[in-house]
Amino acid sequence: MSLSLQIDHFGFLEDGTFKQRYLVNNEHWDQKGGPILFYTGNEGDITWFCNNTGFMWDVAEDLGAMLVFAEHRYYGESLPFGQDSYSDTKHLNYLTSEQALADFSVLIRELKRKVLGAQESPVIAIGGSYGGMLSAWLRMKYPNVVVGALAASAPIWQFPDMVPCGDFYKIVTQDFARSGLNCDINIRRSWKAIDNITATDDGLQWLSGEFSLCSPLKKTDLDGFKAWLQETWVNLAMVDYPYEANFLQPLPRWPIQVVCKHLSFDPSSVSDYQLLGGISEAARVYYNYTGNCPCLNTSSTATGNLGFIGWYYQACTEMVMPLCTDGVQDMFEPQDWNFQAFSDECNSLFGVRPRADWAATVYGGLDIASHSNIIFSNGGLDPWSSGGVTRNISDSVVAIVIPDGAHHLDLRYNNEYDPHTVLSARIQEVEYFKLLNHSELHFPC
Amino acid sequence: MSLSLQIDHFGFLEDGTFKQRYLVNNEHWDQKGGPILFYTGNEGDITWFCNNTGFMWDVAEDLGAMLVFAEHRYYGESLPFGQDSYSDTKHLNYLTSEQALADFSVLIRELKRKVLGAQESPVIAIGGSYGGMLSAWLRMKYPNVVVGALAASAPIWQFPDMVPCGDFYKIVTQDFARSGLNCDINIRRSWKAIDNITATDDGLQWLSGEFSLCSPLKKTDLDGFKAWLQETWVNLAMVDYPYEANFLQPLPRWPIQVVCKHLSFDPSSVSDYQLLGGISEAARVYYNYTGNCPCLNTSSTATGNLGFIGWYYQACTEMVMPLCTDGVQDMFEPQDWNFQAFSDECNSLFGVRPRADWAATVYGGLDIASHSNIIFSNGGLDPWSSGGVTRNISDSVVAIVIPDGAHHLDLRYNNEYDPHTVLSARIQEVEYFKLLNHSELHFPC
Repeated sequence: MSLSLQIDHFGFLEDGTFKQRYLVNNEHWDQKGGPILFYTGNEGDITWFCNNTGFMWDVAEDLGAMLVFAEHRYYGESLPFGQDSYSDTKHLNYLTSEQALADFSVLIRELKRKVLGAQESPVIAIGGSYGGMLSAWLRMKYPNVVVGALAASAPIWQFPDMVPCGDFYKIVTQDFARSGLNCDINIRRSWKAIDNITATDDGLQWLSGEFSLCSPLKKTDLDGFKAWLQETWVNLAMVDYPYEANFLQPLPRWPIQVVCKHLSFDPSSVSDYQLLGGISEAARVYYNYTGNCPCLNTSSTATGNLGFIGWYYQACTEMVMPLCTDGVQDMFEPQDWNFQAFSDECNSLFGVRPRADWAATVYGGLDIASHSNIIFSNGGLDPWSSGGVTRNISDSVVAIVIPDGAHHLDLRYNNEYDPHTVLSARIQEVEYFKLLNHSELHFPC
Repeated sequence: MSLSLQIDHFGFLEDGTFKQRYLVNNEHWDQKGGPILFYTGNEGDITWFCNNTGFMWDVAEDLGAMLVFAEHRYYGESLPFGQDSYSDTKHLNYLTSEQALADFSVLIRELKRKVLGAQESPVIAIGGSYGGMLSAWLRMKYPNVVVGALAASAPIWQFPDMVPCGDFYKIVTQDFARSGLNCDINIRRSWKAIDNITATDDGLQWLSGEFSLCSPLKKTDLDGFKAWLQETWVNLAMVDYPYEANFLQPLPRWPIQVVCKHLSFDPSSVSDYQLLGGISEAARVYYNYTGNCPCLNTSSTATGNLGFIGWYYQACTEMVMPLCTDGVQDMFEPQDWNFQAFSDECNSLFGVRPRADWAATVYGGLDIASHSNIIFSNGGLDPWSSGGVTRNISDSVVAIVIPDGAHHLDLRYNNEYDPHTVLSARIQEVEYFKLLNHSELHFPC
């Protein structure tokens, strides 16, 4: 379904509207006050998030809940200017989190007005990752619209001057270190091995063959190749789920353990060629688990369901998230966070410059104690937990940590391989929902 | 002083900045944690609000407080596009309450960063009328920036479907009814008397002379003349202070009592001419208390310090405040609230249409119980109390009612004629401030 919404909620010159898509399931909804679980869509097609948020489907019957999945503007089919939405800076101007929160608020109020019985239904915002940030922010900014929020793996503190920029990659590294002997050590050594081998044209050719790259590497591609590998390890850390799954890519259970099987050799006993051979086998776990991939494409790491350009624009404007590496506490090549370089890149790409301090101003930064009814869940394996809320802030802004969970594992369908920590997290979340359902009670300490 | 701020906080296409003016006094400021009382400027020149908010000056020493008065964008000297700010819809596009709140938040964060000692100083937002709405909303939307707010005479509920549209004029009428025998009855009869007398050219001429109008009335001016009179009575109700004052106009103490002395005759015993003679004397109390006004100008009712066009634009966009009269419970000619007519007028004036439901969505409507640390004060004589919060919402969102107070009397300088109710209101407000000063305690019930 879709609803016509203002393209600009915060100005009156642009009075156009666009159609926001949303999906509804009320199979289990108790029309006499059953809650509405409202997924605050993130940077992609909403059907994809709908299919990857099994938790909501699993708990709908117990809660007598209506499920709503709302698509974020500028993603999927919710394009304010149709095919022109991404054509230039002018058309991109309404792609902001504040506009998206206003969309969600107007949509919820409209549903409550139009759907018989919904007026008495408390609405609980749910989201994962950026969608989790949005669900927390929706409760913070529009507490009249949602009685509470579950913000899963939501790095609301991954902004300048809130958390150390190196924590993210430290967690990635820890995931590899714990998943196999020498695994992080061999990855840390691989960067130099790449430099060594690609110093010659023969080496370049060998590496392209070893990795079955779709286009052979050139000298000028090296930074890109390394960035692609680095992002591969990051993505593996995000989706290190305890069972076979297909979120960003089809993967085996505990994929990092599978990756690390190829990288368990004693680092002092192998040549650069042997090391990179292992790295190439490891990368194939991510890119070719199905065996259907004839060659590896270094220009793509994740699923096509995510709106890459849109998210890049958001990072270039509001969502400024400093990340850095030092090569010591993490397994990557040292790289400082360079705001100026990032800003210049944004300016040349989109004609905009990021506002580093804005997110802290508008969304409260570390100072969120005066809000209420927000559950932050984080997985200990998830690199994004570096910017997450992992301790209770008050009796009403609470944290759930799932030590062996990756990126919003709790939002996925129940699975026989689920560790007990995620099962108890889900039970706790449902208990909180039931408290919220009875008006605005605070959570028990 | 002034600070450069983004013209558009909510988009990145318009990357220009403008200079926001603010006034600072730190004569009494205790640099070791003394609070910052921050006046959230409303629709006018900030120096005028600074001069008319004596309360802040009166309490600064006791609290060890810094005083800051921040000017609202598009008013006074804080013009985003200089002389062009009002030139067309395009330039007016950034005149919204959300932009103003963002301005205040950025300014406060900047002050805390730059002023030695200010980092530890809790900031309390204070405002009256629309400025009071802004101070309440600032706490609601940016609780990370201000620890609390005093919203004096802030009609945050004067929006569609929140309060009866007739309450405003009912309160005006009550003020006149209680201030003199037959006063409201004679005003209620005056509208028909105007119709009767102006049915002839001689009558029109007589009326123009009787009121010493600067330009003689024409038949087509009658609606405007009545509207001018109606606004005169409304303004008197707003500024019915217990002592001589000059807020909108220079006036005697308890001006409505003085007005009503001219309207105390038995309504059945006077002719239309005698009735309107009394009305004219009554109007002069408002327009010519000083005796310096050679003629009355029906195109102006209030002070030039208020930005009339800017406020009209805001009413035509976000600040949709339905008012209506029935001639029975109030002393005015019956007039329904007609949204469509209003919208059409806005469209022809500014090329924009008001969004009737937006304020309720973005600022919570009646549902503000989840917020904290907000004091709403209202005067029982003030017509704007119709849309104010006059009952405690929680132990942290509280109401103070000053039965014999007009429009934000509590924000004015102490005066020997102040009724005890306003004195005790001010004492209570300062007590709350001291609680806020010690972090985010909730108010005692």
